[in-house]
Amino acid sequence: MNRRLEILRRATEVFQRQGVAETSMEDIARAVGIKREAIYYYFNGRSEILLEIFLPQSRALLHSLRGIVEAEMSPTEKLRAAIRTHLLSFNPSYLEMTVAMREPRLDKNNEKLRELRETWKDYGALWVRIVAEGQRTGGFRPNVDARTIAFGLLGMCNWLSRWFDPAGEISIERIIDDYASLAIDGIGLPVHHA
Amino acid sequence: MNRRLEILRRATEVFQRQGVAETSMEDIARAVGIKREAIYYYFNGRSEILLEIFLPQSRALLHSLRGIVEAEMSPTEKLRAAIRTHLLSFNPSYLEMTVAMREPRLDKNNEKLRELRETWKDYGALWVRIVAEGQRTGGFRPNVDARTIAFGLLGMCNWLSRWFDPAGEISIERIIDDYASLAIDGIGLPVHHA
Repeated sequence: MNRRLEILRRATEVFQRQGVAETSMEDIARAVGIKREAIYYYFNGRSEILLEIFLPQSRALLHSLRGIVEAEMSPTEKLRAAIRTHLLSFNPSYLEMTVAMREPRLDKNNEKLRELRETWKDYGALWVRIVAEGQRTGGFRPNVDARTIAFGLLGMCNWLSRWFDPAGEISIERIIDDYASLAIDGIGLPVHHA
Repeated sequence: MNRRLEILRRATEVFQRQGVAETSMEDIARAVGIKREAIYYYFNGRSEILLEIFLPQSRALLHSLRGIVEAEMSPTEKLRAAIRTHLLSFNPSYLEMTVAMREPRLDKNNEKLRELRETWKDYGALWVRIVAEGQRTGGFRPNVDARTIAFGLLGMCNWLSRWFDPAGEISIERIIDDYASLAIDGIGLPVHHA
């Protein structure tokens, strides 16, 4: 196997097992079976490894969401599909990743970092578009700010980084249902607002 | 002024101005007007400074939420008040803080770190209680998981770390209204589900 690719695979495993924050370059080197210094021949640091892991995932997610936005579905169905796609490809290291991407150590002119930022920007913009389209065509309440709502829903999903346990009692399918229900109908009972 | 307190105040300013991720111990030392080494006499590192800034804020937030939970209000009013209190005392460095608290550098037996974790745990539990009470007394939909919903709403609010600009067009009061509306009634128009 290509050494560079091997480092990425092992790093992914170590990140998943012990969390990004708890993982040092030393840990990754040990998992690959090489010296810490040898990793620096391929990567400038942990942030660069994270970047290489997240960029293809982010590209794939953006691609899926584009398909949803352009599909023949109601705004409600699009929003539900967006929540579903996002949560199914959810990476538990997402929170650490977003923070790591702002570390001073990381070269801000790094071509891949720029692409990741563009990808996230486009991805967020598509969420806003789903909400705004629903407001325009009549499916969604027009009196809320589309960007505030879209980013709120993304935050709701991304927060799983902080609490979701894949081995726990609540399945990801249940969370998808609960969040789609919260997003569309809220937690309040309709009779309560009559 | 007490030197220790002075470091905390200057650090708070620097964190707010340039973001936690972009702030080094060197930056903080420069803001205080002392040598980098001198700060280590008072604090073990950046995470410990962050901890001392966040702990009193977190304690105050927990105290406020306890008052809301015990007040004579409907579940809907309590949820709205919880969102409001949380967003009004919102610290834009929250995301970096949660990540920093998991850094290997930070002593896991640090007494203040343990208190911060307890405080956050109790705080989250109160959010779950508001949702669960509303489900029991009939104000909220019973068919969703209270913990999933409570943590989703907290994530929605905390995500402001990533996008909210205090100098931007959308005010925090508007966001409070939009998020309370989303939480209670959802984005979907009632007629759409008739």
